[in-house]
Amino acid sequence: MSETFHIVPEERHNALVEAAYRHRGYTADEAADAARFCAFASAHGVRTHNAIKALHLDELFGSGAGGCAPGAEIEVVEGRFAACEVWDSKKKLGQSVAYAAIERCIELADRYGVGQVSVDNAFHYLWGGGYVLEAARRGYIAYTNCTSSLAEVVPFTGKFPTLGTNPHSWGFPTAGAVGFPIVIDWATSVVAMGRVQQLKREGGQLPPDAAVDENGEMTTDPNRAKYLVPFGAHKGYGMALVNEIVAAFIGGSLPTLRSRPIPEGEKNTSSFYFQVIHPDAVSGGAFAGSRDQAENVRAVIEDIKGHGNEDIFLPGQDFAAAAEKTAEAGGLLFSAAEIAEFNQLAAEIGAEPWDPAGLQEI
Amino acid sequence: MSETFHIVPEERHNALVEAAYRHRGYTADEAADAARFCAFASAHGVRTHNAIKALHLDELFGSGAGGCAPGAEIEVVEGRFAACEVWDSKKKLGQSVAYAAIERCIELADRYGVGQVSVDNAFHYLWGGGYVLEAARRGYIAYTNCTSSLAEVVPFTGKFPTLGTNPHSWGFPTAGAVGFPIVIDWATSVVAMGRVQQLKREGGQLPPDAAVDENGEMTTDPNRAKYLVPFGAHKGYGMALVNEIVAAFIGGSLPTLRSRPIPEGEKNTSSFYFQVIHPDAVSGGAFAGSRDQAENVRAVIEDIKGHGNEDIFLPGQDFAAAAEKTAEAGGLLFSAAEIAEFNQLAAEIGAEPWDPAGLQEI
Repeated sequence: MSETFHIVPEERHNALVEAAYRHRGYTADEAADAARFCAFASAHGVRTHNAIKALHLDELFGSGAGGCAPGAEIEVVEGRFAACEVWDSKKKLGQSVAYAAIERCIELADRYGVGQVSVDNAFHYLWGGGYVLEAARRGYIAYTNCTSSLAEVVPFTGKFPTLGTNPHSWGFPTAGAVGFPIVIDWATSVVAMGRVQQLKREGGQLPPDAAVDENGEMTTDPNRAKYLVPFGAHKGYGMALVNEIVAAFIGGSLPTLRSRPIPEGEKNTSSFYFQVIHPDAVSGGAFAGSRDQAENVRAVIEDIKGHGNEDIFLPGQDFAAAAEKTAEAGGLLFSAAEIAEFNQLAAEIGAEPWDPAGLQEI
Repeated sequence: MSETFHIVPEERHNALVEAAYRHRGYTADEAADAARFCAFASAHGVRTHNAIKALHLDELFGSGAGGCAPGAEIEVVEGRFAACEVWDSKKKLGQSVAYAAIERCIELADRYGVGQVSVDNAFHYLWGGGYVLEAARRGYIAYTNCTSSLAEVVPFTGKFPTLGTNPHSWGFPTAGAVGFPIVIDWATSVVAMGRVQQLKREGGQLPPDAAVDENGEMTTDPNRAKYLVPFGAHKGYGMALVNEIVAAFIGGSLPTLRSRPIPEGEKNTSSFYFQVIHPDAVSGGAFAGSRDQAENVRAVIEDIKGHGNEDIFLPGQDFAAAAEKTAEAGGLLFSAAEIAEFNQLAAEIGAEPWDPAGLQEI
């Protein structure tokens, strides 16, 4: 990052973000979850899911459009399986639902070794990697997937977008082994639609096999690109399909209804799936060289990063590096443009703006 | 398939394959599992994992090389988690271990909604898709991954192969919805090393970004290709890493030890991870349009395959089509070259060869 960043103390950030969510009718708890999660995203360098983006999304698809219901109460659907729960989240704020779901999965994993929470009638939880990172920091293996708010992705060899960008996120408790949790976290499209828009504005070209035009033909021209394509041909397509099928078993309806007006009696909500595994529940305890589990994980990662591979990237090290930088700075880092957006938000809700002159720079 | 195939009754196939496994010292149960699994693979058109390939693999890495221990007894490692088991498979035949693990996962899923079995000291289970397909046919959502017998894959931006081809397999109970179980099943390398060898023999070119030369430079020339590359850049690399990390938590050791002589006190076995979910354990029961769960899954799949996407491929439909063809033929389908290999095997173990003249053709 060669750009200059302003340092915003987390308390000030959270106070403004909470006020913005309260202003839109969210409860104090929901507003606190929303602020906490955006602070967590910003602290980990995830600029695509900072508070400004979250509030913008909420306006377009959430409380501003009936997709999210401030103050909704989660209903636990009655079930007969001890290690699993299914929730009707009634379009409650996604961050609050996801935090609660990970918490419940951890309780179930502590008891049964593995726990899962499936969520029907959900609204966007922003960044799945954040929840599995949280669980991994607390010592658990965690996984989540969800269906995206729009169907923007064309199935492999298809013509029309009938899939979401449908991300998958895995978190592993590897802080003891390699210094940070390994977090594998990406959407199943090659790029996001936001990236297409950005390249259109900036005059750049898309990577190959990332988007198709209105006839389903591959294009690298962002002006002709209309729909997205899954990464890795049939393999990434399969992974995007996983989310839709899991959602269909939970209670999600037709993917394309998430992008168009819905008929009477239909649904267009997203679905979430969460799973947490206690690392002791997969351990055979018989690690070579008298290593314990963490030492074994370290040895395996060192072997993968050895033999000439010393410069390879471990998924999650970018989040860890950003978190370290944030901790050193003593506050969240925002560009001048981002600060201006926060101040526009403050003006809208009648809150005190942040005076850039009063913020430290880095 | 424009080739001519001979129809081999499954009983004759299984008798020969069982005899071959017994000849190598496997127990009657193991030999029966091995024959059943290869018949299942052949019935589903998975020619890369027919009995000849399985026995060849067993010779190179298995009972012929100390990697697999005929007659070994699985030890269930004592654990405190009701929904999970960890097994030391003591290098028992992978097919027997995997069949038993899926069976146990189903029992656990029936009781807890989700069940998992992690396996240490494992030997190759051949085709993960087969086990999840079996579970999906019986009505369950199933997943498995394993670490491969060799480290042949170079991490994203790396130079040296420190990862296995590390497959993932998901099976969904969609027979009621779409006529067959959806099975998403692939290795995390773009191609298999066998494909590189085949292209070398046949003089073909590799697809781009599938292999690197000895210096870690991408090449499409199979004569220069030395190591494999994960599909989908950093995304497929992340998925290959998942298997190594899960294996490291279970008890697997350094990936590269699976490709080289191991020091005293070390391990070079693979690890398996299995998980089964009862579909009722993720169901919110509130499907739109008064649909039940299977009808909802069908509606979602029809939406994905609609809107101009009618010709797209659903993962698993190839297996289903092959199974239908096998059922119509009334026996397993093998090419003349494959029949010759079976007869060479028969000669080696002193069994009766199959007279091609006595086999129906298709």
